[in-house]
Amino acid sequence: MQEVRLAIENARKPLVCGHVNPDADCLGSQLTMLTALRAMGKDAQLLLPSESVSGKYQGLLQLIPQEFLQLPRHLDDIDLIIVVDTALPKRINKPKELDLPPAAICNIDHHLGNENYGQINWVDPTAASCSQMVYTLLDTLGAKLTANEATLLYAGLHGDTCGFSLANTTHQALTVGASLARHGAKIGWVCQKLHRSLQIHEFKLMQVVYANTKLSECGRCAWSTVTQQEFLAVGAHPRDIDEQVLVPRSIQGVKIAILFSETKPGAVRINLRAEDEINILPLAKSLDGGGHAQAAGATQHGPFDDVVRQVTKIAIESLDHPESLRSTDMEKTNAN
Amino acid sequence: MQEVRLAIENARKPLVCGHVNPDADCLGSQLTMLTALRAMGKDAQLLLPSESVSGKYQGLLQLIPQEFLQLPRHLDDIDLIIVVDTALPKRINKPKELDLPPAAICNIDHHLGNENYGQINWVDPTAASCSQMVYTLLDTLGAKLTANEATLLYAGLHGDTCGFSLANTTHQALTVGASLARHGAKIGWVCQKLHRSLQIHEFKLMQVVYANTKLSECGRCAWSTVTQQEFLAVGAHPRDIDEQVLVPRSIQGVKIAILFSETKPGAVRINLRAEDEINILPLAKSLDGGGHAQAAGATQHGPFDDVVRQVTKIAIESLDHPESLRSTDMEKTNAN
Repeated sequence: MQEVRLAIENARKPLVCGHVNPDADCLGSQLTMLTALRAMGKDAQLLLPSESVSGKYQGLLQLIPQEFLQLPRHLDDIDLIIVVDTALPKRINKPKELDLPPAAICNIDHHLGNENYGQINWVDPTAASCSQMVYTLLDTLGAKLTANEATLLYAGLHGDTCGFSLANTTHQALTVGASLARHGAKIGWVCQKLHRSLQIHEFKLMQVVYANTKLSECGRCAWSTVTQQEFLAVGAHPRDIDEQVLVPRSIQGVKIAILFSETKPGAVRINLRAEDEINILPLAKSLDGGGHAQAAGATQHGPFDDVVRQVTKIAIESLDHPESLRSTDMEKTNAN
Repeated sequence: MQEVRLAIENARKPLVCGHVNPDADCLGSQLTMLTALRAMGKDAQLLLPSESVSGKYQGLLQLIPQEFLQLPRHLDDIDLIIVVDTALPKRINKPKELDLPPAAICNIDHHLGNENYGQINWVDPTAASCSQMVYTLLDTLGAKLTANEATLLYAGLHGDTCGFSLANTTHQALTVGASLARHGAKIGWVCQKLHRSLQIHEFKLMQVVYANTKLSECGRCAWSTVTQQEFLAVGAHPRDIDEQVLVPRSIQGVKIAILFSETKPGAVRINLRAEDEINILPLAKSLDGGGHAQAAGATQHGPFDDVVRQVTKIAIESLDHPESLRSTDMEKTNAN
């Protein structure tokens, strides 16, 4: 972390990036890093295409000055690229036509699979969230957190620990949470925005996901489905698929939960979650996907019903071969 | 708290009680208090009728020695009654035929409406959960928490803060959470048991609640319903009604959420939740119910559909008279 600190202290015009489909942890890390750098007097820029942020997370964008959200006009004099919460450089969230400037990359992340693609790499898979790492870094830099920054980082911590309920919830994560509360994090407000404020089409999507949930005969695999027609019928969009795989996952005894969504005719997005000792990553990889040991994804092409039938069959069969689905200790660390 | 400490230090045979329909906070407080007193060498007894604990919380009972769960055979020599998380003495969870022994009552609670019915009263409405108070007390008493006790108290804290997501989540609550994690609380395990392990009939009940959710024209009131017939059709029981009112509450803009469940033919249980500045308690009281400013309940008698129609009408009308539904600051503290 010392190397990161020095690089940031020396930077005059840093660019702050995150990953595509940004979630609460990515946004919390990215936005807080930006405003803290600005407060340090640096001419920091944000790289965050506004249309990439889903409706659920729009509330987080209100926590920083709106003029900070504009994409940078020119990047020639960027002297440091800070990338947060992003395992692979190809996942950096940027407009397609834009090339990153030729500055050094400072890579701050908690994904085990991080490829150490930066000139400076601080990758800590024991951190429950990247927001927790950003908190520690800013503390070391002597930054005074504002209430809005504390709120953003709390959103990230809360998001990646699923409300401090997953096995990745360490005492460090909770200690940082306590410190953020002491800095004035608006916990009730942000959690209402993130977890208790579904738009009507999002709620109707939940109705579909609940209604369509099925359980395998053996009780160890549960899945739900959303077809193109169902997306249209409730006025929802495939980008509204977020954590709905938690619905089939919520059933007792389920080891593998799957959500199938027809993102466009003939294309089926597959969200996979595993419980207990199960490692879902080999299954995801066999479907040309990727991710973590207990949270992974893939996309398959073909008639929707065929994909559902084939993938659930493979998932159930794989449960009979537990040797292929066992998590290593290292992978489990990164299971969120 | 000093008075409580002294009373506990002097007790030889204390009895530990909680409230009817015990939730995670009540059970976490009660079971931890019991095992900690036992570890101090006291002949502590538990008053917890086993059939009063819902299926969801059975996992918590596994965290203490099973012989501790037996109801006490005779109560003659009880020299202190410790009651946790219980606002009113009539809510103490005990077999109907049993009279409490004539010992002093030590009342430890975080409900604002607590009637200070004990000889010793420690009531702290700023505490997010009673488990947090029990942690502080045991710390003062010099008790060394076991991993199971830390797990139980974490369950209580997590439950009453809704995963550290409600406005009652203070930095103290999170600091205690961090300490419990340091004591070895099995966070992933207990949260899976509590939040990600629905039995099939509980899941089917959720499907019914989602499918039956309706939103008022004004968008400020949402409700769902479960009839006797629906309970039977999915193999569920009215005691399975717990926090399902969160379903209609999850819609953006909803100020009042209601769950109507037909507990027996002609009897309708009404769970009420409020958001923002709304105080639902006057509405609950007008229906002969009670509770907190933002979480209250009542029971009404009459044909199910009539009760639903009348109560939703009253709720929607009351939203047009905000002066009757404004929380005081003190009431808000107690809103969980």
